[in-house]
This record gives sequence, structure tokens and C-alpha cells, in this order.
Amino acid sequence: MTKLKSTNITWHASEVGRADREKLLGQKGATVWLTGLSGSGKSTIAVAAEQALIQNGRMAYVLDGDNIRHGLNSNLGFSPEDRTENIRRIGEVAKLFTDAGIIVFSSFISPYRADRDAVREIMGPGDFIEVHVEATVETCEGRDVKGLYKKARAGEIPEFTGISAPYEAPEKPELVVDTNSQSVEESVAAVVSYLESKGYLGS
Amino acid sequence: MTKLKSTNITWHASEVGRADREKLLGQKGATVWLTGLSGSGKSTIAVAAEQALIQNGRMAYVLDGDNIRHGLNSNLGFSPEDRTENIRRIGEVAKLFTDAGIIVFSSFISPYRADRDAVREIMGPGDFIEVHVEATVETCEGRDVKGLYKKARAGEIPEFTGISAPYEAPEKPELVVDTNSQSVEESVAAVVSYLESKGYLGS
Repeated sequence: MTKLKSTNITWHASEVGRADREKLLGQKGATVWLTGLSGSGKSTIAVAAEQALIQNGRMAYVLDGDNIRHGLNSNLGFSPEDRTENIRRIGEVAKLFTDAGIIVFSSFISPYRADRDAVREIMGPGDFIEVHVEATVETCEGRDVKGLYKKARAGEIPEFTGISAPYEAPEKPELVVDTNSQSVEESVAAVVSYLESKGYLGS
Repeated sequence: MTKLKSTNITWHASEVGRADREKLLGQKGATVWLTGLSGSGKSTIAVAAEQALIQNGRMAYVLDGDNIRHGLNSNLGFSPEDRTENIRRIGEVAKLFTDAGIIVFSSFISPYRADRDAVREIMGPGDFIEVHVEATVETCEGRDVKGLYKKARAGEIPEFTGISAPYEAPEKPELVVDTNSQSVEESVAAVVSYLESKGYLGS
């Protein structure tokens, strides 16, 4: 990148747009929307994929519970309306990052097909990559890293996806990674390979 | 940037963080929060500054009415509560972009000091750069590019900032640009010069 001299900045009359940002970054912006049960491996895959991209000179960013639930969506609860609004806002933010030219990973259970489809709807063609991170309830419950399944079985968490609330699997996801059998490395390789083969990562 | 081979991706065990993204981009993330009356020149300056940065190899993005009011904040009106929520959400999104390592320009009237200070409050030290885009009501009304002042004077727009609703100027902004007398070029140069002198644009 060239050194910028504010004393001698110049710009053309036209506004820059998404294409200019993508050219600068050498990639295409996209939303990689990971959906799956709690414990399926969404965040692990998202974080590892972000890392793989950044270590290879691509710009990526992860939206997850850590930076969304305590920030933008801190005023939302868990009512049906609030769950829908939660996903809607995440989708709108992902759209902004995509427009900025960034490959943004969204890591939320997002159990309802209608909510995910509404996000797909606001995105441009090719901008929304739905990845079903598939794992059976048994697999996820066997991991139970956060102890949430145990609490859900004990009735301490109402409406827990896969136990006491439905998970609606994607019907036509762009990609499926099966973490019942695949390692994190294999899942990440599948995601990165998809991005590469479809031209998101430039040349 | 190096070519990424998905068949041979590697990454270290640690997560990437803001510092890694900033290193990749060769800059520091920041929120440049432009505040001022309608017609003061906020969006013109934001778009031109974005362009100047991108044409010089820096990653920048503009949040403005075009991409926020029709998207993320499309379910907000103009009640006092909704106006505050509008600015809160924009602040949270700007924080995400800042964390991503991007220089994000926020271009909204944001007339209330308390709302702007609440955004400053959620940001890390040095991440929030408040820029008062100063212009008198007379100057802005003289421009009246969108014909809004005329409508406001006719009583067709209630609670119009500067006419029938207050504008609370920043008390300690990081920067003031006076568009009563300064050209767009001079204002943009002042913003970019600030970013450069404070080390946001790398070396």
C-alpha cells in the first residue's frame, strides 16, 4: 500500500463503491451464514476460517454472540419477535460488511428457515452463502462444552433448540459440513475451498 | 497478497484479533463520527474522505442514511426513543467496523450530546473521533440541497434540527471543520490530516 500524504491528497469526482473496496482488498465481499445446533461447531469453524483467511491476506470478520448479543442486540430478549429481530439485525449488519467488501462469518443457531430466508432476501445474488453445520443432537449433547444441554434436559433452559424447540435445517444450503464425522480442519477447508472455487478470494 | 490454496491452508491455534486485522490492512480501526446540521456537509465530506483513503490504499466505509435507515433501522421512527435507539445502533455497528480494523465514517445529524456521548462511552480509547461539521443555520438554509429547510419553515417537517428542534454542538470534539468558509477539499484534508497525524493510517 502506498503512503498517503494528506497534504497532497487527490480524489476523482465520483464516489467509491463496493467494486473499489473489493479491488483494494483483492476479494469479493460475502456473508457466510453458519447455521446449526448449539455445539455443532459454528463458532469454532467461523473463527478458524477467519484466521485462515487473514493469515493468507484476506479480510474476514466474525459476527457471533460475543460481539452482537452484548452490543447491538443487547436490548433484545428471547421472545419469538425478539428472536426474529435478532436475526434481522445480524443480517443487516452482515449486509453492510459484505458491501464493504469483507467476508463476514455469521455464527448463530438461527433455527428458523423463515428468518434465514429473510436475510437471503435482502442480499444481492451470490452474497449469501448458507452453510449448514450439521451435527446430531446426540453429537452436540455429547460435547456439551458449555453445559447447556444438561441444563436444557433439566428444564432450566426453556425452548432450547433441538431439545424443546425446533431446528429447521436449510433445504438448499450452499454448503453442508458434517461435524459428526469431519474435523474442524476438514470443515474449515471445505468452507475456504467453496469460497476459493467460487472466486470470492481473488486470484 | 499471497495466493491462498485451500488444499494447503494452515493456521495457528490462536484466534486472530483486531491487531491481526489492523496489521493486514496497515492501519488502525476508528470511528469518525461526523455531526452537524442537515446541509452542513457531513455526507459530502464522509464520501470524499472515504474515497481519498481508498484511493490511497486504506480501508474505509461510510455509514449514512442511505444504508442504515432503509436497512438496520428501517423499523425505527422519529420519536425521542427511536432517535436515541437509531444512534445507539449506528454506534454499535461503527464499533464492529472499528474492531474489524476499518476506518468507518458515520454521517448523521446526531443532534443530542447524550446520544453521541453514549457512543463514545462504548468505544475504546482513541476509537471515537468526533468531528463537528460546523455551519450556521443560515449557511445550511442557503444551500438547502434537498429543500428540507423550506419544508421545515412551512411547518411541513416537525422537529427539524436547527429550526424547530435543538442541535447540541459537541463540547470537546476531536476536530472541527467549518464549512461556512472551508471548501470540501479543505475539510477532507483536515480529517485525513488528523487521521494521519494520530497514526491511524499506518506508515
